[in-house]
Amino acid sequence: MILLIGGTGYIGLKFQEILSSRNIEFRNLSRSEVDYYDFKTLNDVIANAKPQFVLNAGGFTGKPNVDQCEINKSGTIIGNVLLPQILGQVCELNDVPLVHVSSGCIYAGDKGEDADGNKIGFTEDDVPNFSYDQPPCSFYSGSKALGEEILSKFKKVYTCRLRIPFDQFDSNRNYLSKIQRYDKVYNAVNSISHREEFVNACIDLALRECDYGIYNVTNGGYVTTKQVVECMKKKFKLQKEFEYWEDDSEFYTKGATAPRSNCVMDNSKLLNTGIKMRYCMDAIEDSFDKWVKE
Amino acid sequence: MILLIGGTGYIGLKFQEILSSRNIEFRNLSRSEVDYYDFKTLNDVIANAKPQFVLNAGGFTGKPNVDQCEINKSGTIIGNVLLPQILGQVCELNDVPLVHVSSGCIYAGDKGEDADGNKIGFTEDDVPNFSYDQPPCSFYSGSKALGEEILSKFKKVYTCRLRIPFDQFDSNRNYLSKIQRYDKVYNAVNSISHREEFVNACIDLALRECDYGIYNVTNGGYVTTKQVVECMKKKFKLQKEFEYWEDDSEFYTKGATAPRSNCVMDNSKLLNTGIKMRYCMDAIEDSFDKWVKE
Repeated sequence: MILLIGGTGYIGLKFQEILSSRNIEFRNLSRSEVDYYDFKTLNDVIANAKPQFVLNAGGFTGKPNVDQCEINKSGTIIGNVLLPQILGQVCELNDVPLVHVSSGCIYAGDKGEDADGNKIGFTEDDVPNFSYDQPPCSFYSGSKALGEEILSKFKKVYTCRLRIPFDQFDSNRNYLSKIQRYDKVYNAVNSISHREEFVNACIDLALRECDYGIYNVTNGGYVTTKQVVECMKKKFKLQKEFEYWEDDSEFYTKGATAPRSNCVMDNSKLLNTGIKMRYCMDAIEDSFDKWVKE
Repeated sequence: MILLIGGTGYIGLKFQEILSSRNIEFRNLSRSEVDYYDFKTLNDVIANAKPQFVLNAGGFTGKPNVDQCEINKSGTIIGNVLLPQILGQVCELNDVPLVHVSSGCIYAGDKGEDADGNKIGFTEDDVPNFSYDQPPCSFYSGSKALGEEILSKFKKVYTCRLRIPFDQFDSNRNYLSKIQRYDKVYNAVNSISHREEFVNACIDLALRECDYGIYNVTNGGYVTTKQVVECMKKKFKLQKEFEYWEDDSEFYTKGATAPRSNCVMDNSKLLNTGIKMRYCMDAIEDSFDKWVKE
């Protein structure tokens, strides 16, 4: 049996759906039922349930976006730092592995270009460069990096980095929906994570008993916002011209408060386990092909 | 036996000194000897030592001042939020009371004036108004308020609020030394805590088994910076004229980064336990009378 924390968020719901469809027995721990921020309560639940592993899809992401984390610092620290610490401790005490949903947003940029002109992505060995320890960062990114740091002390942890989730289901959390709804688009280079592939990979890392540690759970390669917009226009046969923010200074003056992470990730550690992830652009085209309006 | 955490800081050293002079058996847990940020390690130590209570004088205050907490956010969260959470959990698991050194800097201002024109101080029932939940605040103040919030979930905790420590021993952490060294003084109204009286009160709250909860461990009443300067000039027979920052705007442009807390505290809950604290001005005059240069 698998114990799921935070099963009602955008990623958590997909965990519930996939675990069900794969006939994997699980229990979604809702906060109204169990105060999992209370160490003793959570410890009792896990000691009794003896789950095969715990999946933490909980955390504080801010609504409608990460700018909210600049305002709600307490919620951000509690959800992204204190909760991982409690989960790490309780899982360690009960010798249960923990799968923690982290984020690739603790990096900015890339590591230069290879001989073919392809951008080189950050690996799990690279120290986060968009964190409290390497500012500037958003309060959100800093809290996620600190959450990883806290969890690095515990042995049986899979830290799975999600990066800009998307799929074919229209939603205000879906990257492909966001792009359609923005008045103005910010052009950037990013690695991204197909939601279902991400969720399957997290589950498989634990089920297959892969080595513990951090994994960049992103699709292969990277995309520019312009590529995604062009793909969408083609697939949806749109005539509309998309406006782009002129530069960072215009974007951060008018479009956003907290600095945003844009980064290229290297997913080869994950691929080396045998778990498959499609290339970014393949997964995006497929999502547009199967598009389901909200 | 009493277990002391953070015994090498400005307050921690005084705890060591006073515990020794009062012949109270204690053990100072140094971080080089025991990684008390590691839950399991700390749990083993406390389970074996079975202390009468744990004293937490540890935390992150920033050097040379709280502006450093704006820069070192990780250290601030780890020291002021995660450490209290770990200590709360471990003490609860072992049924050991915890005395936690908190801070009155989670308040700003006062609660108006009474019929005699005296400022009314904040009591322990007042919600902090200089915190992440009630910005603006400094990153330090926010972390201390969040630390209190985390500890409020545990039953056997004395949360002792220190406010601007001072005594007769010249030191860059002593309020009376700071005032002498500043090029320019910020005039404000504050309640303050005589270091030895604070430390004795913390110990006595636990030794006398007073009710658990939050206590404003400050001297009676409040002082203005100008009163302290005048007192010092009189005691030291100084001719020097002290310059004051013209207003907040000048102070925060040139003198400081993070907003500073200035507040009036009500210490009557503490006095009602029978523990004595002198009036601010009496304790200050006495400190200047006994002044010991560094």
